[in-house]
Amino acid sequence: MRSEDRFVEAVRALLPAGGPVILGPGDDAAILQREGGLLAVTTDMLVEGVDFAAEEAPEAIGRRAVSVNLSDLAAMGAEPEALVLAIGFPKRRGPEYPLAITRSGAERAAEFGARLVGGDLSDAPATVVSVALWGRPSGHPLTRSGARPGDDVWISGFPGRATAGLDLAGRGSASSAAERELLAAYRDPEPRVALGAALARAGAATAAIDVSDGVGVDAGRLARASGARVVLERTRLPIAPALADYAARAGADPVAWLLSGGDDYELLFTALTWPVPPARASR
Amino acid sequence: MRSEDRFVEAVRALLPAGGPVILGPGDDAAILQREGGLLAVTTDMLVEGVDFAAEEAPEAIGRRAVSVNLSDLAAMGAEPEALVLAIGFPKRRGPEYPLAITRSGAERAAEFGARLVGGDLSDAPATVVSVALWGRPSGHPLTRSGARPGDDVWISGFPGRATAGLDLAGRGSASSAAERELLAAYRDPEPRVALGAALARAGAATAAIDVSDGVGVDAGRLARASGARVVLERTRLPIAPALADYAARAGADPVAWLLSGGDDYELLFTALTWPVPPARASR
Repeated sequence: MRSEDRFVEAVRALLPAGGPVILGPGDDAAILQREGGLLAVTTDMLVEGVDFAAEEAPEAIGRRAVSVNLSDLAAMGAEPEALVLAIGFPKRRGPEYPLAITRSGAERAAEFGARLVGGDLSDAPATVVSVALWGRPSGHPLTRSGARPGDDVWISGFPGRATAGLDLAGRGSASSAAERELLAAYRDPEPRVALGAALARAGAATAAIDVSDGVGVDAGRLARASGARVVLERTRLPIAPALADYAARAGADPVAWLLSGGDDYELLFTALTWPVPPARASR
Repeated sequence: MRSEDRFVEAVRALLPAGGPVILGPGDDAAILQREGGLLAVTTDMLVEGVDFAAEEAPEAIGRRAVSVNLSDLAAMGAEPEALVLAIGFPKRRGPEYPLAITRSGAERAAEFGARLVGGDLSDAPATVVSVALWGRPSGHPLTRSGARPGDDVWISGFPGRATAGLDLAGRGSASSAAERELLAAYRDPEPRVALGAALARAGAATAAIDVSDGVGVDAGRLARASGARVVLERTRLPIAPALADYAARAGADPVAWLLSGGDDYELLFTALTWPVPPARASR
């Protein structure tokens, strides 16, 4: 178990059960029962030197901070409503810097129907951007824990590209369309909000998680939460041509990047085998 | 105008008006219209070396991070419901450190009826704790903008003590009961949740703000938002005896600490003069 997962277990142990919290720490977002319906909430913090380089443009930081939070809501099948954004930054960055982060974050959120409604600015030794985002689950919220033996495992898009993009970012600039694709996968991930909401509305998925720490790690989390085993067939993993090329030239295994690389923000979900076998459809 | 206030103005300018956001950036918390009622939301970040010392106990950090957010909801007259907490911290602190911050934050929130429902852990060069807290406005939400000429100005408790407490913390330990009172005002502020909610329920206040940056600064913000002037009479300011003593020994002016010191988290609010003069009561 990763230290992050151990932390979640420890936090879960100290919280009282029941009440308005339908799903607390340990999933991609929390789900609360309020008058008028459910509320899905998530928070994610990006830190300079850890999640982005010191020289990263503020517009890219704000956009990515919001995208990774949108991805958490996507994994619950929730439609984003609003967010707050807290920024810590060194004064030497100047006043335009946090404003550029905020503006790009607000624009990114607006693309998915969410509005920035509040924020906080702090002096800090290095830049930190913390977002809290909430929304409304559409249909039945997706969780990590509903996978059952026999379900199919699905993955959106082409995970692993973000890790290749990070590798590329460290080496300098991208020179081909394929390299730009990898770099964009890392720098500007696309949260799967519409997919998550559609799955929840249709009741089509039994469980879901967003792939932020690698398909292997996050499939393991979904499996553990569901009390099931997830089997990933190597030959059926979605390896992007751009990733296969780049890995071949780097002498690396693209499947390893897909399984244990992070930052892809694709959705991994499980669903009844389709077409549903007659024996199961009759249940 | 302070840089924080200029930032808020700039953010406000880039947001679309209308929609579900009744009150966006620029007040202590945002107010949103959702099915089933209003939602008040706030976020505040504490940073090591800025808002607390590196050697501060994690329990004190978590408690204070939650208290300052509770104070923002108090200033809206909202009753706290739930929060999420994102922590960035250096790995050398060990795994118990963020758990202690989380546990104490969750306990502090529970004292005011709010539940921790989610969080995020990040590696970071220095400790950062970001809280997003939401709740339900009771009655008519308090804002900064409702003060009218002729209203009385009220302040809860004894602001200025936190600044003296910070001064004391820098000098070492407190030796008398009075000094412990000042230190506690800084280290462990008491959010005025019950007062704010009671004012909102009773419709008793015309405007309110929490005093986080000094009575002078925050009274100025309330005045600007209300398009009114706030007059503070020096002889009627609430100077705690402990503060008067400490300031006298330090050769400082306790009124200056009250006006421009910060971190008190008292409520400053305006209300119709009581008893209401007949001419106004008849309107």
